[in-house]
Amino acid sequence: MRAATYDGKGGVEVIKLRDDVPQPEVGEDDALVEVAFAGLNRADILEREGNYPMPRSPITIGGLEYSGIVRSTGSRVTNLAAGQRVCGLVTSGAHAELLAVNALALSKVPDGVSLRDAAAIPESFITAHDALFTRANFALGETALVHAVGSSVGLAAVALVKRAGGTAIGTSRTAEKLERAKTHGLDYGFLLDDGWRGRVHAATNGRGADVILDFVGAGMLDANLGVLASQGRIVQIGTMGGSGASLHLGLLLAKRAALHGTVLRSRPLDEKIALAKHFERALLPLFARGYLRAEIDRVFPLADLPAAHTHMESNANFGKILLAL
Amino acid sequence: MRAATYDGKGGVEVIKLRDDVPQPEVGEDDALVEVAFAGLNRADILEREGNYPMPRSPITIGGLEYSGIVRSTGSRVTNLAAGQRVCGLVTSGAHAELLAVNALALSKVPDGVSLRDAAAIPESFITAHDALFTRANFALGETALVHAVGSSVGLAAVALVKRAGGTAIGTSRTAEKLERAKTHGLDYGFLLDDGWRGRVHAATNGRGADVILDFVGAGMLDANLGVLASQGRIVQIGTMGGSGASLHLGLLLAKRAALHGTVLRSRPLDEKIALAKHFERALLPLFARGYLRAEIDRVFPLADLPAAHTHMESNANFGKILLAL
Repeated sequence: MRAATYDGKGGVEVIKLRDDVPQPEVGEDDALVEVAFAGLNRADILEREGNYPMPRSPITIGGLEYSGIVRSTGSRVTNLAAGQRVCGLVTSGAHAELLAVNALALSKVPDGVSLRDAAAIPESFITAHDALFTRANFALGETALVHAVGSSVGLAAVALVKRAGGTAIGTSRTAEKLERAKTHGLDYGFLLDDGWRGRVHAATNGRGADVILDFVGAGMLDANLGVLASQGRIVQIGTMGGSGASLHLGLLLAKRAALHGTVLRSRPLDEKIALAKHFERALLPLFARGYLRAEIDRVFPLADLPAAHTHMESNANFGKILLAL
Repeated sequence: MRAATYDGKGGVEVIKLRDDVPQPEVGEDDALVEVAFAGLNRADILEREGNYPMPRSPITIGGLEYSGIVRSTGSRVTNLAAGQRVCGLVTSGAHAELLAVNALALSKVPDGVSLRDAAAIPESFITAHDALFTRANFALGETALVHAVGSSVGLAAVALVKRAGGTAIGTSRTAEKLERAKTHGLDYGFLLDDGWRGRVHAATNGRGADVILDFVGAGMLDANLGVLASQGRIVQIGTMGGSGASLHLGLLLAKRAALHGTVLRSRPLDEKIALAKHFERALLPLFARGYLRAEIDRVFPLADLPAAHTHMESNANFGKILLAL
């Protein structure tokens, strides 16, 4: 089959498009999916560089999210048939023509959602939904502060906060991304300059944000705690700024705050199945009804995966970068 | 009225017993309580030293928890009458003959619970209950690690964990306290030496503890994170070891862990009322039925408050130190 593999670790030059990759083995509980579109994520770049803390397969194929059509199913699969449109998250391997996935760990794509959109939704919306609701119990009337609001997770968080009756504040290093995020419902957009903390305080009448979603971690933690409301929750969904952080514990106590860490990719199968089922039941129908929408930056053919990586590394994208198989 | 006041800040010599302190003003929503017993807490020592971050009244009277009998009520109070036995938490002032409290922010003492026990219960059991259940969602079948398990909050946590169907692991610097904590249900007691982390891992078959209650904070945080189970929760109910901590954020993410800070004393009145009502409804009946019990270390007459402070500062107490009014 065709697939984009990493031939070693390093820059975009290690990406090799091959058409002789062995087809994945389809276990008796699996579905074989013919991939239509696949997302590109920061974790793909980390993996290409050799900086992602996951073991590599002998043939390393990137790609954590996909949409496609079921071609065949294993002998014990009863919930799916060939021809079904599906999407979901995988640990790796979505940048390939074919993908074998546990048949419970994927979601059926409802009518009214295109395969193109379906590939752009799973990682960002499952991450944002899990962070906001499962971790932080975000509730109607609350205010969320979303850093890197022009990222696909950031935009998904804004859309979910607005749909749930909340107020969304976002930060970005780019004024244009803040303006575009307003089309997803962003209420307040602030450049991440010296004044952002004061602006968050002003926008919340001095209360601070009830929930903060942050990708940076070290270096931002104490600032986030400073603009957090009493009984607020910070959800750390990345540590792009480093892993060792200093934390003002006394302020954490005084605010009765909580700091949550979360990561999707390393979860065990049972939890991934639960996520996929919840995604199918609670989130995908909101796209079918037009209440939520995926923001797609650009679609590259798989052969242009190096250019797609370079585009993401330039931070110029707004929303999801997709690969078309 | 009689009261123990702090005449300045410093050692036990600043404690002055007076019998000419003006009676507290009783507002129209208040009850005037004739105090029977009052607890002594670490926060009283911090306040005496001037190290507690709360503003002082012109006449500073310590004491955060009490039991007693309602002597009179304000004009708008409908839920209480003179003669009612009550107990609860206050921001200060319990080390006095009389105490004015919002009539909704106290709890009725049920039959079968003595006023002596009732004064020993509120601070430790409300703190432990709030930390375990409200913050950390402790659930049947889980394991809690309780540091300083010989403290009254530690013993309360052990009793609640066992009552809720969990496993309790405790640490202490004193072997005798570990042994005595076993009479409250402690399953595993470990000295806080170099080997405690390995012992927690062994006792949990390598999983780690689902919930950790810690008073120390800085210096313990990374060790606690190391022995925390996947999806575990650390509740920080004190920062006796300092407020600035270093935190291994990457491990927080990888474990999908949460760090909660909590403090009771500075909460607004509406939350204190909710705590008092929940305490009356859910916790005090468990004492009346004999399912939970207060551990009382010693009862000092109020005149011996300096000796009571010294006793607590020596860390020799096991369970609650009470003052008899």
